[in-house]
Amino acid sequence: MKVRVDVMLKTGVLDPQGEAVRHALGSLGFDGVEGVRQGKVIELELADGTTEDTVKEMCEKLLANTVIESYRIHMG
Amino acid sequence: MKVRVDVMLKTGVLDPQGEAVRHALGSLGFDGVEGVRQGKVIELELADGTTEDTVKEMCEKLLANTVIESYRIHMG
Repeated sequence: MKVRVDVMLKTGVLDPQGEAVRHALGSLGFDGVEGVRQGKVIELELADGTTEDTVKEMCEKLLANTVIESYRIHMG
Repeated sequence: MKVRVDVMLKTGVLDPQGEAVRHALGSLGFDGVEGVRQGKVIELELADGTTEDTVKEMCEKLLANTVIESYRIHMG
């Protein structure tokens, strides 16, 4: 089964990568770029029957740094 | 307006980051992890009226390395 996890920096946490992209888009001539936030998409191919709790545990232990990141789980 | 862009490695392209995560999950005791692919989520805050073509151009020029990556645009 396929599960997707989106991991984003929590609001308020400085996002240097996002800032860098915003500046680069500006210098490429794209105006109207008011903000950019960059995060991770993790697509997991898991054995059938894997529960959302197990995926949550994967996020808490490894996939997300829960001090500065939040995550959303999209089950298969 | 908010636009989300998912950038993933094209199928067939080796994903060392995904492999590293897969091994780490295994060593943390999670079995049944058959595959892991990791990509980027880019959330853009754009001026109202920005067209999908403009976002496509941003992807082609900067946000995705179209030789090895594919992207999906989710307009606001």
